Amino acid sequence: MKEITKAVFEGYTYVEGGVCAAKGFKASGTYCGIKASEIPDGNESPIKAKNDIGMVVSDTLCTVAAVYTQNKVKGAPITVTKNNLTKTGGKARAIIVNSKNANTCNADGEQKAERMCQLTADALGISPEEVIVASTGVIGQVLPIEPVERAVPVLVKELAYDGNVQAATAIMTTDTVKKEIAVEFEIDGTKYRLGGMGKGSGMIHPNMATTLNFYTTDCKVSADALQAALSEVVNVTYNCLSVDGDQSTNDMVCVLANGEAGGNEIVTGTKEFEVFKKALYIAMLHITKMLAKDGEGATKLIECRVTGAPDHETAKIIAKSVIRSPLVKCAMYGADANCGRIMCAMGYAETDCDVTKADVYYISKAGKILVCENGLGLQFDEDLAKAILSEEDITILAQLKQGSSEATAWGCDMTYDYVKINGDYRS
Amino acid sequence: MKEITKAVFEGYTYVEGGVCAAKGFKASGTYCGIKASEIPDGNESPIKAKNDIGMVVSDTLCTVAAVYTQNKVKGAPITVTKNNLTKTGGKARAIIVNSKNANTCNADGEQKAERMCQLTADALGISPEEVIVASTGVIGQVLPIEPVERAVPVLVKELAYDGNVQAATAIMTTDTVKKEIAVEFEIDGTKYRLGGMGKGSGMIHPNMATTLNFYTTDCKVSADALQAALSEVVNVTYNCLSVDGDQSTNDMVCVLANGEAGGNEIVTGTKEFEVFKKALYIAMLHITKMLAKDGEGATKLIECRVTGAPDHETAKIIAKSVIRSPLVKCAMYGADANCGRIMCAMGYAETDCDVTKADVYYISKAGKILVCENGLGLQFDEDLAKAILSEEDITILAQLKQGSSEATAWGCDMTYDYVKINGDYRS
Repeated sequence: MKEITKAVFEGYTYVEGGVCAAKGFKASGTYCGIKASEIPDGNESPIKAKNDIGMVVSDTLCTVAAVYTQNKVKGAPITVTKNNLTKTGGKARAIIVNSKNANTCNADGEQKAERMCQLTADALGISPEEVIVASTGVIGQVLPIEPVERAVPVLVKELAYDGNVQAATAIMTTDTVKKEIAVEFEIDGTKYRLGGMGKGSGMIHPNMATTLNFYTTDCKVSADALQAALSEVVNVTYNCLSVDGDQSTNDMVCVLANGEAGGNEIVTGTKEFEVFKKALYIAMLHITKMLAKDGEGATKLIECRVTGAPDHETAKIIAKSVIRSPLVKCAMYGADANCGRIMCAMGYAETDCDVTKADVYYISKAGKILVCENGLGLQFDEDLAKAILSEEDITILAQLKQGSSEATAWGCDMTYDYVKINGDYRS
Repeated sequence: MKEITKAVFEGYTYVEGGVCAAKGFKASGTYCGIKASEIPDGNESPIKAKNDIGMVVSDTLCTVAAVYTQNKVKGAPITVTKNNLTKTGGKARAIIVNSKNANTCNADGEQKAERMCQLTADALGISPEEVIVASTGVIGQVLPIEPVERAVPVLVKELAYDGNVQAATAIMTTDTVKKEIAVEFEIDGTKYRLGGMGKGSGMIHPNMATTLNFYTTDCKVSADALQAALSEVVNVTYNCLSVDGDQSTNDMVCVLANGEAGGNEIVTGTKEFEVFKKALYIAMLHITKMLAKDGEGATKLIECRVTGAPDHETAKIIAKSVIRSPLVKCAMYGADANCGRIMCAMGYAETDCDVTKADVYYISKAGKILVCENGLGLQFDEDLAKAILSEEDITILAQLKQGSSEATAWGCDMTYDYVKINGDYRS
C-alpha cells in the first residue's frame, strides 16, 4: 500500500542496496534500548524491539555535503555535525544515528552527541571529527548514553556491505515502511552508484532540509559540486514536501561521496555534473514521495502541480499552501472533490500572484476531471470525481495561466490516525 | 462544555440580547432550504432544519466599520458589501446573511449577492446600498436564489427586538453552539450597549478579519473612531485566533453604530473612545474564545501566552505558531505534556527572536507546571501535567526573557472529529 511507483529515467537503473549500493559503504543497525520504557526489567526475557541505532561507514574518507533544518531550536547533533564538518573541511568516514530520542533541548545534548562521535571513532580507529551524528525522536528528554555505549561495538562488529536494511530500520520512528533507494548510471564508460535512506513521518515541513536522510555514492565529486547538487535538488524535492506544516528541529540531509568507483572528479559546469545531479534527483524524488505517502496516518499520496506561474518560486509557494491545508488534506481523505478548499488555499498562499482565474483538475489513474474553471466552481460528474479521489495516488493540478513556470509539491491526506499517533507520542 | 467563562471588567456588565441588546436593533432568522439536498421532495412533510438565513435591521441609519479577509480569493458578498459601503460613505441599515453556501467562486456570485441586497431593500423600503450582505458555507457551488426570495418577506415580517437568537443560529455552519455576547456600560451618565454574534468553526486563521461576525451598538460613534476601534481590537482578538491555519474567503467583521442611546458623538483621542473601545474588546474577546473552543471537532480551548518578547508583533507571531501547530494540537487532545513540540513550533515561527532560552509552563485550573526551563526539557510530575492538560481550558505560557511585550493567541485541540467533519463537508 505504501509503495511508490518508480519513475522511469533513461540512462538510470534502479538497483538494490540503499546506502550500501555504492562501492565501499558498509552499514549496520541494532536495538539498544534508547527509550527507557522499552528496556526489560530484571530477569524478564528481553523484548525484541525495532532497531534504534544505526551506523554507516565508508572504507575511505568521503567528501560530504549537507543541509540542515532552519528551525531556530536545533538539535544538539546538528550543532556537533556542523562543527565536525567545519573542522575536517567537509570530510567524513562514518555516520552514527539513533531514533527514539532527538537529543534536543537537553542541557547535556552537545556533550552526548560528541560522546557518540568519540565512541564511534574509537571503535573504528578514526578521528571523532570524521563522524556525522544524528538523532530523531522525542524532544526535551535526556538521551541515555549507556545504551549507545553498549551498541557501538555491536554496530562496528556487524558492519556489512549489505547492512543497509539494518540501518534503514534503525532510523524509523513512526514510519510504517523503511525508505531506501539506489540507482546506477554511467559516465564515460565508468559505472557509478548512488543510494540513500530516509525517515519520516511527522513534523515534516522542511525548509532547506528535512528529516533524516543519508545518501552515499562512489562517484568522486568536488566539495563545491556536491554541495551545489545537493542544494539544487533539495529545493525541488524535500523542500516541496509537507506532511503537517511542522518543521523539525533535527532535519538533516547529507551526501557522502567516496570516489571508490574511480574516474575523474566531477566538478560544476560540466556534462558529468548534470548526470550526477540527475542521479541525486531521482533518488531524492523517490524518497520524498515515500516520505509523503508514509506521512503519519496517511492513506494517500497527494501531489499538487501548479503550472502557468510567473516563476518557479511562486508556483512552489502556492503548491505547498495547497498541500499543507488541513481542510484540503481532510477532503482528500474523504474523497470529497471540494474545489473551494483548493481555491481558498491558493488564495491565502503568500504570493502576489493572481490565482483567482485558475483551472483546477483532479487526476489519478481512475481519470482526470476539471472541477474549477477560470476560478469558478463547475458542476461535474460526482461519481467520476469520487472514483478519482478514491485512488491512493492523487494529483491536484492548478493551471494559473499567469506565465510558464511550474512546481510540484507532495503531501498526504489527514486521517483519524494522524490524531491518534500524535495524541500520545511520548509514551 | 463549550461554555466560556466571562472575564470580569470593572464598569462593564454582561447583558442578554446579542445583536439586539443595543437600542433600535431588530433581528430574525428562518430556514429556507439553501442546500438543495435538504429540501423535501414532493409531498413529504418539510424537514424542520436549522435556520439558514438571517437578518439584522436598525431603526435608523448606522455608521459602519468593517474588516475583511485578506485571501485573494474573495467571496462575492465581500465585494458587494465593500461596494455598498463605499457608495453610502460607510452607512447601512440592514444585514442579510445566509449559511450553507459561501457564494464564492461562482460566475453569477456578485449578481446573486446584489439581488440579496435588492430583495432586502425592497422589503424594508430602504436603498440596496444600505444593505450588508454575507454568506458562509460551501465554496464553488451556485447559490440558489429562490429560497432567498421566499425567505426575505418572512425575515422582514418576523423582525423582532428579541430576534437575536434566530439570527445567531442562522449563521451557524459546523458550529455546535450559537455565539452571542452583549455588554452594558456608561459614559457621562448615559447607558450604552454593544452586542454581537459570530460563527466558526473551521477554515479559521484570520488576517485582519475573520469568519462572520456582526456587532451592533447604540453609541453614536464617528466613522473614523469606529474603524479605528475595530482595527485595533481585531488585531488582539480575531487576528490571534487559529483553528486550522486555513484562512477563509468570506471572513468579515462589522460593527454598526446607530446612536439611538443618545449622548455625544465619540471621536478618537478621547476618554470616551477608550471606554467604547474596551466594550468592543470585551465582546470580541469573548466571541474569539467561543470560536476557538468550538473549533471543528475541538474538545478544549487552548490559549498560548507569550511574554518577555521584544515587541507585541513578535510575541503574537510566536503564539500563533504554537496554536497553529498540528502536533501541538494533537498533544493537547491527548493531554501529552510534550514540551518539545512547543519549542519546535516557537523555533519555526517567522521571527528573528531567540526563543531557544524560553521557559514553558502548562496552566489550567488543575495547577501550573514548568516543563521547559531555559529551553531545556525538565523532568516533571507527569501525573500533575496530565491532570492540568485534561482540563477543558488550557494555557501554554512561554516566557522568552527577551523583552517586556506579550501577546495571547487562541485555538483548540485537534481531534478525530476534525478529520471526520472535514472528510465530507459538502454532503
